[in-house]
Amino acid sequence: LERIVKVSDAFKAKPGERVRLRGWIYRTRSSGGVIFIILRDSTGVIQAAIKKQNVPQPDFENASRALIESSVTLEGIVREDKRAPGGREIEVKSFQVIQFSHPFPIGKDQSTEFLLDVRHLWLRSQKMTNVMKARSKIVRYLREFFDENGFWEVTPPIITKNECEGGATLFEFNYFGQRAFLSQSAQLYNEAFITALEKIFVLAPSFRAEKSRTLKHLTEYWHLEEEAAFYDNEDNMRLQEQLVSFACNKLAKNDSELLKLLNRDSKTLLEVKPPFPRLSYDQALEKLREEGVKIEWGEDFGAEHEKLLTKGLKKPLFVHTWPKKTKPFYMEVHPQKSEYVLNADLLAPDGHGEIIGGSQRIWEYDKLLQRLKEEGLNVKDYEWYLDLRKYGSVPHSGFGLGIERLVKWMLNLEHVRDAIPFPRVINRAYP
Amino acid sequence: LERIVKVSDAFKAKPGERVRLRGWIYRTRSSGGVIFIILRDSTGVIQAAIKKQNVPQPDFENASRALIESSVTLEGIVREDKRAPGGREIEVKSFQVIQFSHPFPIGKDQSTEFLLDVRHLWLRSQKMTNVMKARSKIVRYLREFFDENGFWEVTPPIITKNECEGGATLFEFNYFGQRAFLSQSAQLYNEAFITALEKIFVLAPSFRAEKSRTLKHLTEYWHLEEEAAFYDNEDNMRLQEQLVSFACNKLAKNDSELLKLLNRDSKTLLEVKPPFPRLSYDQALEKLREEGVKIEWGEDFGAEHEKLLTKGLKKPLFVHTWPKKTKPFYMEVHPQKSEYVLNADLLAPDGHGEIIGGSQRIWEYDKLLQRLKEEGLNVKDYEWYLDLRKYGSVPHSGFGLGIERLVKWMLNLEHVRDAIPFPRVINRAYP
Repeated sequence: LERIVKVSDAFKAKPGERVRLRGWIYRTRSSGGVIFIILRDSTGVIQAAIKKQNVPQPDFENASRALIESSVTLEGIVREDKRAPGGREIEVKSFQVIQFSHPFPIGKDQSTEFLLDVRHLWLRSQKMTNVMKARSKIVRYLREFFDENGFWEVTPPIITKNECEGGATLFEFNYFGQRAFLSQSAQLYNEAFITALEKIFVLAPSFRAEKSRTLKHLTEYWHLEEEAAFYDNEDNMRLQEQLVSFACNKLAKNDSELLKLLNRDSKTLLEVKPPFPRLSYDQALEKLREEGVKIEWGEDFGAEHEKLLTKGLKKPLFVHTWPKKTKPFYMEVHPQKSEYVLNADLLAPDGHGEIIGGSQRIWEYDKLLQRLKEEGLNVKDYEWYLDLRKYGSVPHSGFGLGIERLVKWMLNLEHVRDAIPFPRVINRAYP
Repeated sequence: LERIVKVSDAFKAKPGERVRLRGWIYRTRSSGGVIFIILRDSTGVIQAAIKKQNVPQPDFENASRALIESSVTLEGIVREDKRAPGGREIEVKSFQVIQFSHPFPIGKDQSTEFLLDVRHLWLRSQKMTNVMKARSKIVRYLREFFDENGFWEVTPPIITKNECEGGATLFEFNYFGQRAFLSQSAQLYNEAFITALEKIFVLAPSFRAEKSRTLKHLTEYWHLEEEAAFYDNEDNMRLQEQLVSFACNKLAKNDSELLKLLNRDSKTLLEVKPPFPRLSYDQALEKLREEGVKIEWGEDFGAEHEKLLTKGLKKPLFVHTWPKKTKPFYMEVHPQKSEYVLNADLLAPDGHGEIIGGSQRIWEYDKLLQRLKEEGLNVKDYEWYLDLRKYGSVPHSGFGLGIERLVKWMLNLEHVRDAIPFPRVINRAYP
């Protein structure tokens, strides 16, 4: 037998068929003259029984010697066996070890810090593998939505001279003698594309030097950003509802098996459909106060506030029309209420927190210049951005979605770091 | 008329139909009592004729006053007109200016440096718009290929402690008091994924502090990297042929109109099909010497060499089996010829240069450790990478493709910086 089949194929094969498999030892135990191995490949796990009398002697010796995570090839007959996981077992006829693994350092109940230290090995755990598969699917569906709706994918720079979201969380570095920063958001650049392409999106890493340890902050995260000419804040919110619902529904419909392995109910995701509930900032504040929270007008919401606001919700919640002073300089001021901006944050249910921030942008030169000055920013650094308001400016809106936060909510993970393979937080840039 | 239609729709509308369009003034001229405007939106350009007697007086005055790049809305009747570009003209009935553009700073025959200074405005030129559209399509097709062939998309970190491709071109920065670098390649991390997912790809920015100005180097570029368990160097080359051919053929078939606008012949791209021609490094060296080039064994090829090797070719050329000393530490040494490695560079036709570099990787612990030491690298920094050879290592291969270089060749662009919206080269991080 030359051709290798996948574990998933072995589950579909006819009982009695001879197959050749390749992968890693996920579990191993021996009982009398039989070694039971659970073999893992990228498609799943299957039990293989290696009986002393069925295989050449060196094969049996190698099988008894091979520790978990050893890489192996085996050949055998597919049998139905109700006691085996998934009701299938391979009756092994030949067994080769590709590499005998050293004793694997990860056992049960290991500390979070240790698992982060050996992240390169922990990634092969069933949990991380399934999360990474689901993330890959989610990202594919998000792009599919934009492709189907006439958005062009663009690639703004990571190396910039701008402070998009404020100086406190900037990573600075030396760019051939110039001071440069890692991009916090592609937004300012995205606004340059819409004059030609009208509707664009980008998925790229963004960077924030977050000095606090929280459940939802990473210093490096994947940022899906959208910008559209002629969209107002209402259009912007509608687009977000559609995007998020599309991804939830697609995952629930196409990947229910994967969701089951992650203990996530597909039905919950199927219920995510437009319209999403909405509260203005002032309404949200009132609701929090009714719940006994002491909070001043103009304060940002913390994790506890977000939890209270989204308790028991089946869909994400828009909190819109925030006080101007809580938000960056580029947001369009409310035409009737000059202390507010035309924006919205999208909060995931059950305290999973903010997954999208979006707004209408200031599109008129004089107003933008005034806001830059009010915020004490260096106008010289924003000259090119101001230019966009001089040459054919149009009303427009956009938003940014944090992929890891979306994945955290969609898969109901405890921590945002489990939604990214190699999380970067304060003091951790290894492995 | 409430609904806005696109320029492309106006070309499909019945003559006599009334339409409402929105966009930017691409060209404007007046002749007697008629102002001819070429209106641009994200789908194309169309001529509109504004006659004094057909529109309210303020509309005509605004139309005469509006400079190119002004944003406008207009309504009118679709007419057939052989003199107009594309044979269509809008007979305008009403005309509104959204924003009167300041005099646009870009005219004809402007210097390259000036166009880079106003890149945020130059992006709206027809050339850049079409290149960005084509790039968006190419990237979509590349992902489609991987999706269809069972590869999982992953996201390795940008912030790292490793020197994947050597210290000379590293951007270093301060990560909360630690020394960290911007990723030159995701490869080392990609190798950590294959033990669980087997076949993976990633599209992310990579960074190289290239100190030289060339036609093909950027300090920030988009890097499509692939890694697959159980693939040898032959499998690796076959996969590259298939991937590149897939993207070329899809673009030629689906986007021939766009290619026409870019003066690129679809037929040329349709001819790109596996197998691609192959030369070993030694054969390539011989060929260069036959052409009169003085070059020593073990020297890398320069742009002129690549040009000579690919002159007149219709498909990219693999140059495989390079001298070990010209390549990084992680490449598998040739089993029979220990001064060579199992690798290949893929060179685009007509001197467009290297678009892919790939290799089989060293998968055995002792060999990898020895190569790290030979290269004088700090073994401590590669501990996690060495771990991958301790716990279930398997033979594997992978490659990295430079998106901008691929786009440069596929669209036959002169310079790699025209394949990316905001190019970063030495001394340029603005706009």
